[in-house]
Amino acid sequence: MDIYQRIREEAYEANMALPRMGLVKFTFGNASAADRQRQVFAIKPSGVPYEELSPDKMVIVNFSGEKIAGHLRPSSDTLTHAVLYSHWPDIGGIVHTHSTFATAWAQALRSIPIYGTTHADHALIDIPCTPPMPDEWIRGNYEYQTGMQIIQYFQEKSLNYHEIPMVLVGSHAPFTWGETVSKAVYHSAILEEIAYMAYLTEQIHLGGRNAGQPPRLKPALIQKHYERKHGSQAYYGQQMPDEA
Amino acid sequence: MDIYQRIREEAYEANMALPRMGLVKFTFGNASAADRQRQVFAIKPSGVPYEELSPDKMVIVNFSGEKIAGHLRPSSDTLTHAVLYSHWPDIGGIVHTHSTFATAWAQALRSIPIYGTTHADHALIDIPCTPPMPDEWIRGNYEYQTGMQIIQYFQEKSLNYHEIPMVLVGSHAPFTWGETVSKAVYHSAILEEIAYMAYLTEQIHLGGRNAGQPPRLKPALIQKHYERKHGSQAYYGQQMPDEA
Amino acid sequence: MDIYQRIREEAYEANMALPRMGLVKFTFGNASAADRQRQVFAIKPSGVPYEELSPDKMVIVNFSGEKIAGHLRPSSDTLTHAVLYSHWPDIGGIVHTHSTFATAWAQALRSIPIYGTTHADHALIDIPCTPPMPDEWIRGNYEYQTGMQIIQYFQEKSLNYHEIPMVLVGSHAPFTWGETVSKAVYHSAILEEIAYMAYLTEQIHLGGRNAGQPPRLKPALIQKHYERKHGSQAYYGQQMPDEA
Amino acid sequence: MDIYQRIREEAYEANMALPRMGLVKFTFGNASAADRQRQVFAIKPSGVPYEELSPDKMVIVNFSGEKIAGHLRPSSDTLTHAVLYSHWPDIGGIVHTHSTFATAWAQALRSIPIYGTTHADHALIDIPCTPPMPDEWIRGNYEYQTGMQIIQYFQEKSLNYHEIPMVLVGSHAPFTWGETVSKAVYHSAILEEIAYMAYLTEQIHLGGRNAGQPPRLKPALIQKHYERKHGSQAYYGQQMPDEA
Repeated sequence: MDIYQRIREEAYEANMALPRMGLVKFTFGNASAADRQRQVFAIKPSGVPYEELSPDKMVIVNFSGEKIAGHLRPSSDTLTHAVLYSHWPDIGGIVHTHSTFATAWAQALRSIPIYGTTHADHALIDIPCTPPMPDEWIRGNYEYQTGMQIIQYFQEKSLNYHEIPMVLVGSHAPFTWGETVSKAVYHSAILEEIAYMAYLTEQIHLGGRNAGQPPRLKPALIQKHYERKHGSQAYYGQQMPDEA
Repeated sequence: MDIYQRIREEAYEANMALPRMGLVKFTFGNASAADRQRQVFAIKPSGVPYEELSPDKMVIVNFSGEKIAGHLRPSSDTLTHAVLYSHWPDIGGIVHTHSTFATAWAQALRSIPIYGTTHADHALIDIPCTPPMPDEWIRGNYEYQTGMQIIQYFQEKSLNYHEIPMVLVGSHAPFTWGETVSKAVYHSAILEEIAYMAYLTEQIHLGGRNAGQPPRLKPALIQKHYERKHGSQAYYGQQMPDEA
Repeated sequence: MDIYQRIREEAYEANMALPRMGLVKFTFGNASAADRQRQVFAIKPSGVPYEELSPDKMVIVNFSGEKIAGHLRPSSDTLTHAVLYSHWPDIGGIVHTHSTFATAWAQALRSIPIYGTTHADHALIDIPCTPPMPDEWIRGNYEYQTGMQIIQYFQEKSLNYHEIPMVLVGSHAPFTWGETVSKAVYHSAILEEIAYMAYLTEQIHLGGRNAGQPPRLKPALIQKHYERKHGSQAYYGQQMPDEA
Repeated sequence: MDIYQRIREEAYEANMALPRMGLVKFTFGNASAADRQRQVFAIKPSGVPYEELSPDKMVIVNFSGEKIAGHLRPSSDTLTHAVLYSHWPDIGGIVHTHSTFATAWAQALRSIPIYGTTHADHALIDIPCTPPMPDEWIRGNYEYQTGMQIIQYFQEKSLNYHEIPMVLVGSHAPFTWGETVSKAVYHSAILEEIAYMAYLTEQIHLGGRNAGQPPRLKPALIQKHYERKHGSQAYYGQQMPDEA
C-alpha cells in the first residue's frame, strides 16, 4: 500500500473537479493535497490532459519543492505550492486556476471590492490582488518568488490566510487554499462567482449613471454574515459551533 | 402517513429545482412550502448539499419560526420565511437564491427598472430593492429583521405582494414568493432573466452613447402585458379568466 | 389523414427547437408554420409547457386569425402571425422569442448596427427596431396592431422582407420569418448571435476609450458577404446559383 | 487505400471539434489539414451541416486552390487557406471560426492587448487585427485577397507566424493555424478565451473608474511565460526542451 495513496486520490479528485466545474480549460490549472505529517504534497503532473490523469500519475513533492516520488515532471507551478505549504502550517490543499472572471480582475490589477453578503459569507475583506512583480524576481526563480510574494503580501498587509483563503496574483491569476484540497476547490469556485458578481455590480452602477464606485458592504453586515458561517457562534450548517 | 408529507415533497422538489435551473450554486439558497391550515412550513436544512437532500430531511417550522419536526437544523434564513408567511396570508411558498444577475442589482442597491414587456408580463413596477439595513437590526435578530424590512418596505411604498412577487434585499440577494412554492421558483427564474435583460438594456444604451438611462416602458404597454396574463380579462394560457 | 399534418409537425418541431437552442425560456415564444395553399397556419397553443406539446396540440388558424381546428386556445400572439402571413406572400414560417440579447436591443429601442460580416452574411442593413407603439393601438387590438406596425414600418422604410427576415418590436422582443418555419428558427438563432456580437463590439470600442460608436461595415464588404450567400452568383453551400 | 486518408480524418475531427467546443454555430467555420509532401489539404465542404460530415466528404484541394478530389464544393474560404499554406511552409492546419468574443474584437477593428499571463503563455504580442480591406480587393478575388492581406500584414509588421499563430481579420473574424490542425483548433479556443478575458479586463478597469486602458503586461513577464512553454529552456509539460 502506497503511503501517499490518500493525497494522490485527493489531489486527483480535486484536479478532475476543476474542468468539470468550468474553472479550468485545457491544462490551465493545478491542485495539490498535502500530507502535513510527512511534509509532502501530491500535485498534478505538468501539461498532462485531464482525461489522461489518474491518482498514480500525481507527483509527490516535499515542502522544499523536491520530487519524492513519481515518473512525471510536476506542475510548473510546484514551487509556488511548496512555498505556501512551508509557510502556512494550517493548509492542506492548494488550487491554481485561470478562471475567467477572477483572472480578469488579476489582469486589471484590482482587488475585488466587498460589495455583498455572498462575498462576506466567505471573506471579511476585499479579495487581495498583488502588485506586478519586480523584474529580477520574474527573471530569477519565478514560481518560488510567486509564492514568496503571496506570503510577504499577506504579512505586509496583516492579512490572515485563515480568513481570506484566496489571492489574485497581479497580471496572472488566482490561487486558493484550505484545510483540505476539496475546500480549496470550493474557494476557487466561490472566488469565480464573487468576481463575476462584483464585475456586474460595477457595470450596473455605471449603467445607472452613478458617480464613483458602488459603496462597499457595511461593516456590520460583513461581520454578521462572516460570523454566522465562521464565527465562534456560527449557526450556519449542521454543526454546533463547539463541534466545528 | 406523515401529515407534513405534501409540503415536505413540495419543498424538496423546489429546492432540487434551484441548482438544476442554474439559480443556486453549492448551498446558497433555500425554498420552503407552507401548509396554511396547520400554520407550518417545510424548509431546507442548513448547509446540506443538494445531492444529499430528501423529502424527509426537510425541517418543519411554524410561522413563529420554531422547529416542529425534523432532526436537522433548518436553513439559517428560516426566520425570514416565517415573517413573510405570518404577514402575508396568500403565499404558499418562498424561495431565496443568490442568482448572479439579481444579486448584482441588489449589491448595486438598485431597483430594476421596467424596460420591457418580459418584465411587464410578470410585474407592474420596478423590482424593488430595499435600502441598507440599520446596524442595530443587523446586530440583533438579523434574519427576523430581514423579513420585517421586506414587510415594512412593501407597506411604506404601498406595494402589493400579489402584484410584485419578488424583492431584492439590498446588499444581499433576492427573495421571491407565490401561491405555491413552484410558482416561487418560477418567479426566481423570471427575476434572474429580467435582471439580466435590464443590465444588458442599460449597457446597450451606453454603447450607443445615449445620455441618461433608457426610457422606462410606456404605462399603456405595462398595463396591456400585465393584464393579458394576470388581469380579469386575461387571455394568455388555457384557462378562461373566470376559471382562473 | 389530417390535411394539416405537415404544418402541425413543422410547427411542433420548430417550437421544440426553441428551448433546446436556448432561445426561449418557459413559454416565452412561439413558432408557426403556414400552408399557403389552404391559407392557414399551425401555431403553438397559449401557455402550454414545451414538454407537454405534441403535433396534434398545434392549433390551426386562418390568415384572418380565426381558429379552424384544435381544442386549445392558440398563442396570444396569433394575430401578429396572421397579419404577417396575410401581407407577405412568400413566408411559410414565423418565430417569436424573447431571446436575451435581441430582446435587450428591443428594450433599448435601438436597431442593431451592421458591424461585421456575420451580420452581412444574413442581412444587408441594420436589424430594424420599431418605435414605441401609440397608446390607442396598445389599448385596442394589440396583437393585430403589432403585426400592422411591422408591415407599415417595412413599407415606410422601404425594407424588403426577403432581405431582412427579422425585426425587433421596440420595448418588446424579436419576430423572425422565412420560406419555412425551420428557416425562421434559424433566423432567430442568427439574430441572437448578431445581437450578442454587436453588443460586445460596442463594449470593446468603449473599453478602448474610443469616441462615438464603432464604424459600420464597409458597403463593399456588406455587398460581398451578402452576395456570396444570397446573390445571383452565390458560391456558398452546395447548390449552384441556378439551382437555388 | 486513399492516399489522402490521414488528412481527411484530421480535417474531419477538427471540423467536428469546433461546434463541440462552442467555437462554431451552424456552418460558420471551417478547418483544414495539409499534406505538405503532396502540397494538398483536406477542407470542409461548403455549407454542409456538421452532423452530415464524414471524412470522405472532405474536399482535397492543392495549394493553388484547385480541387483535386471530392464530389462537393469546398468551403467558400478555401482560397484563404490555400494562400496561407503556400506562403508559410511550417503550418499543417488552419481553422476559421466566427467565435463570439474574438469576432467582436475583429468587428471593433482592435488588436487584443496583451493583459495577462494567459495571453503570454501563447503569444508574445497583441493579437493582431488587420485593417479594413480596400474595396478593389473585396470586389475582386476576395478570399484570395483575405489570405494575401494576412501574409502582407505579417510581413509589414515583421510578425512571426510561429510566435503568433492567430490573426483577427478586421470586420470579419479570426483565423488560426499550427503545425497540425489539432493545434490550430487549440489556438482557436485559446484565442476565444484571451478575447473574453481582455474584454473583461477593460470593463473591470472602467468599472473602477480608472483613466485610459489597463497597462499591458510587463515585458519580463511576457518573456518568462512565453519561454517557459515555448523557449529553448521550456519546462512546461512532459518533454524536455531537447526532446521538443
